Amino acid sequence: MASIFTKIINNELPAYRVYEDQQIIAILALDQVNLGHTLVIPKKEVDHWIDVSSDDFLAVQKAAQKIGQAIHLATGCRRVCTMTVGFEVHHYHLHLIPCWEMSELSFARAQRKSDAEMKQILEKIQRHLEK
Amino acid sequence: MASIFTKIINNELPAYRVYEDQQIIAILALDQVNLGHTLVIPKKEVDHWIDVSSDDFLAVQKAAQKIGQAIHLATGCRRVCTMTVGFEVHHYHLHLIPCWEMSELSFARAQRKSDAEMKQILEKIQRHLEK
Repeated sequence: MASIFTKIINNELPAYRVYEDQQIIAILALDQVNLGHTLVIPKKEVDHWIDVSSDDFLAVQKAAQKIGQAIHLATGCRRVCTMTVGFEVHHYHLHLIPCWEMSELSFARAQRKSDAEMKQILEKIQRHLEK
Repeated sequence: MASIFTKIINNELPAYRVYEDQQIIAILALDQVNLGHTLVIPKKEVDHWIDVSSDDFLAVQKAAQKIGQAIHLATGCRRVCTMTVGFEVHHYHLHLIPCWEMSELSFARAQRKSDAEMKQILEKIQRHLEK
């Protein structure tokens, strides 16, 4: 069965799309650890990041650095933290999480945000991405 | 003042060296979340990963994927998790942490291991890296 991310890539599920190209997609996480929490995902569905093709893996990282810079500017956070876990969705995705304190870096804090909040942070990140 | 990692790179401090080339170094973390916990570090000292040169950043990621594969084989873990935090040491370092359960991914669990344990896991990871 296709992963939730493959369904988003195939337009079968909605998402707040931060960035997209031939190889990768970046979306706001459904549950936000902090507002601006973004996932960078290779379009080709592979479970464990160590098994992703080097080409796709590096495409994720290249995009992550640009999107990380935009999240930093859009949120004014102290650090953009990154995580790869993968016990739940078996399609590699790199978390980019704006943080002010280390203690914030916990999925227990993740929560839904309003559509208005999501649209506002999406626009802010994209504005900084375009520069 | 030079970071603890720059001091290790310059041989002013000891470390269990997993891998080294012109651009990057990988060492076992001093405090291990799980045995095999490795840090991948660009030799050029830059604080925030979003500011690391693209060339150095991608060199870290390329090495991380190979070392991640070796950690997976050496430990038999379910997933190799990755984290970038950086509130404490201001020299970019990517954590590679072998995990069996998501709850293990906490720095609160990090602890010193004996020299014998460190040498044993180092040898195991390096054996798989050479393949």
